[in-house]
This record gives sequence, structure tokens and C-alpha cells, in this order.
Amino acid sequence: MIFIGEKINGMFSTIRKAIEERNSEIIIKEAEKQLEAGADYLDVNVGTAKDKIEAMKWLVNTIQQIPNVKLCIDSPNAEVLEEGIKLCKNRPFLNSVSAEQSKIERIMPIAQKYNTKLIALAISENGVPADSDEIIANSAIIMEATAEYGIKNEDLYIDPVVLPVNVSQDNPRKVLTAISAIKELDIPAPRTIVGLSNISQKCSDRKIINRTFLAMAKYAGLDAAIVDACDEELMKTNLTSEILLNQTIYCDSFLKK
Amino acid sequence: MIFIGEKINGMFSTIRKAIEERNSEIIIKEAEKQLEAGADYLDVNVGTAKDKIEAMKWLVNTIQQIPNVKLCIDSPNAEVLEEGIKLCKNRPFLNSVSAEQSKIERIMPIAQKYNTKLIALAISENGVPADSDEIIANSAIIMEATAEYGIKNEDLYIDPVVLPVNVSQDNPRKVLTAISAIKELDIPAPRTIVGLSNISQKCSDRKIINRTFLAMAKYAGLDAAIVDACDEELMKTNLTSEILLNQTIYCDSFLKK
Repeated sequence: MIFIGEKINGMFSTIRKAIEERNSEIIIKEAEKQLEAGADYLDVNVGTAKDKIEAMKWLVNTIQQIPNVKLCIDSPNAEVLEEGIKLCKNRPFLNSVSAEQSKIERIMPIAQKYNTKLIALAISENGVPADSDEIIANSAIIMEATAEYGIKNEDLYIDPVVLPVNVSQDNPRKVLTAISAIKELDIPAPRTIVGLSNISQKCSDRKIINRTFLAMAKYAGLDAAIVDACDEELMKTNLTSEILLNQTIYCDSFLKK
Repeated sequence: MIFIGEKINGMFSTIRKAIEERNSEIIIKEAEKQLEAGADYLDVNVGTAKDKIEAMKWLVNTIQQIPNVKLCIDSPNAEVLEEGIKLCKNRPFLNSVSAEQSKIERIMPIAQKYNTKLIALAISENGVPADSDEIIANSAIIMEATAEYGIKNEDLYIDPVVLPVNVSQDNPRKVLTAISAIKELDIPAPRTIVGLSNISQKCSDRKIINRTFLAMAKYAGLDAAIVDACDEELMKTNLTSEILLNQTIYCDSFLKK
């Protein structure tokens, strides 16, 4: 399971302010906190910053003061993505492309050129998929494109798109069904990823919703998630799931990791 | 989801003592605690009591001082089962038969005669199933017998037999696969049940193992579980799972139930 820490994102007010003020101390502290909590990668998103390219370059360089840190460069803007990825010392995730032709044409070449891992949202020109069949159909479009650009299935992380459960209560089951189905699309299968916190957006009791869905999604075959790595109960649920799914050998101290 | 409270069991020392001393206060208190916590039924097991039939009759009569309480009469002994079931005011569960011919012949007639709900362990003369195929094969033996005795699938709760994860780490996935497969065996499908606490027997951090497995099993299609109903986090995980699987309508106070 690959965990990508979600916190270096200009949508959070402290991060937005730190980006504006180029306050590297706050950024590095937030990065280190997530890494200590168990994040394998850190998502880097400049949010609504005005000078997006400069902000991304500053963020990437700032976080890379931490030795060996691995990044997930996150932007809807191809240029911002490329400028961030260019600076990465370790092989990054590119977050994200989709099944939309315009996205494929602008963003897949960047993933190809810099040999990144690639997150692809199962969203088409018709918007967010209505059911698991549409998630699969969009996944097939994405896989056709990655094949064309020489991006391997092992480097492709398809995101079936999690919606808030209080808005779309039939979405979690569709996503779970799709996760299992995507694993059957090819050999080797593409990987799967979710933006976990979306499931509980504006819900009460967010953390128990997140971790309960994580357990189900892991059983469905989920490979990676963008998460609040500092949510200790979430990380414990992950370790427990790995014991139950025989992905880690049980020992009495399995939660002390 | 049907929850059967596991605590009225002579294997627990306070209950064993209460049975020996015919201390109805302790039994009623333990019963009420489980009902308040959300148990739908209460398992009743005399454990190693010497006068098993008398102990069962006393327990059933004692617990039934609580109005409308529903029971799950639990014994390996056909006579103890029958004497307990005979006294039940509400339609009880019989716990349990198995796929062993001797069990089928002695116990199914009791379930038939008293029109009980029936828990059936997917255990055959060869012992505990080695894999999910064997669980399914044993389920088929059970279903052939219930059909013969006129017991409906809706009243049959097949238990795929959960083993402690520290002993048999490939068991949880087999059980999950079997739960999904059992739901495909007939229309209407037989129900599924697990003795949840078994999964964490002699493990550290038992409660997180129990509730994480419950979330996965609910996604696989589990209908009922014998549980520690007083484990509040478990009950919250159940409610959260029902929100995520669209079995209960979301509201902000979904955990306040």
C-alpha cells in the first residue's frame, strides 16, 4: 500500500499562507510530520496561488531539503505539473490526467517524458462516472492512451473518483466494485488509487468514515491512497487490514510499526 | 445486520460462577447491558456446567424475565438445545448444526420441529475447511439437508468458520471469499454469520482486528455476527459500514443511534 500525504495543499489555509509568504519552516514541518506518520509520498499542490509555476518550484525545492523525500506533483495545469516534475530528485507521481482527450494530449506526454508514475481520474468528457461500468469504460480509454504513450500498467494508478457519502450514497459501493474490476482489466493490472478524504467531505465523524472505507477498499484490492497520514487510527486500520489480508505477517506488536 | 451478543456463555468465569450459584442478578445485568448496547439476540451457552439441561432451562427462564428478549440457544448437545428452545417465548436461533451427518440427523429435526432460525457451521467430517471451495462444498451439504427438512434459506445462517488470524493468516480472506460465494448459491440466498471475536483470539489489539474484519465482511455480504455488543467502536464501525454500503440513509447524527 502506498500512502500519499495530502496536507501540502494550498487549499488548506495555513499552507496557502506559507506559500504566499514563502515560509519554508511551516512547509518542512508539515512535510516531516506526514513522513514520520507513515506517508510514502507527499502530494504537492499550490492551490489558488497566483504565481502557480513559481509557487510549485519553490514548494518542490523547499520540501526536497528533506533527504530522499518522494513527491506527488498535483495540478490541473500541465505547465505547473511539468515545472514541478522537472525538479524532482526521486521519481514522482504525476497527479493527474483523466480520460478526457484534452487532458490525455497535454499531460500524458509529460508523464512519458519524465518517466513518472501517473494518477489518472476515471473522468471523461461526460463528467464523473454514473456507475462502475462507466468507471471501467473510462479506465479502458485511459489504458489505451497509456499504452500508446508507453506508460506501463505498473506505473498507472487509476482513481475511480470517490464522492462524499452524504451527497452520493451509492458511490462507495460503485467505487469498490470498480476497484475489483480494474484489477481484472489486464495482466499485469493497472494500479488503483483513491483520494480517501473525499468520501467524508462535509460529513460528521469523518475519520471513522475514512478508515472504514479504507478497510473495504483494501479488501477490494486498492493499491494506493491519498490520505491524512497523521490520522493515527487510519494508519492502524491499514496495518490491521494488511494482517487480515495476509499482506504482512502477524506479530503481537503489529500496531507498533 | 443481526447482532447476537456473545457474553452469556459459561466459558466466561463470571457467567460460569453465576450459573453455578444461580445468581439471576448477574445474568440479567449482563443481558441488559448487551441489549442496551445494540444486541438483537443474546447467545445462551451453559459452557462446562455439570447439569447442562437444568442450567440451560434456568438461564433461558432467567433471561426471559426481560420483556421481549430474543435468544440464540447455543450448545453442542441436542438435548440441551431442545430443552432451551422449548422454553423460548420468541422465535430463537439454534446454534448450531454443521455439515456432519451425525449433527444433521440429530439437530436439524429440532430446528424443524420448533421452527427456529438455524446457524450451521461449514464444518464436515473432515474438520474445518481448508479453503473457500471447501466452505462452499460444506454449505451445499447443509443446504441439501435444510431443503429436506423444510428449513428455508432465509432462516439458514451459514458460518464459514473464522479462525484466529495469528494462527491461520490466510483464513480471513477465504472466509470473505466464501461469504460472497454463499450469497450466489441460491435465490433467495442463505444468510451468512460469523463468530467475530474468534478472528482475534489470543491476539493483541483484539478490538481493532474485530472491527476491521467486520467492515470487510459487511462489504462481502455478511448478514449476522455473534459479537461483543458492548464494544462501542465495533458498533460504530457497523453503523459507518451501513452508511457506506447504502443500507442506512446518511444523516449527520448517524453514530448517535
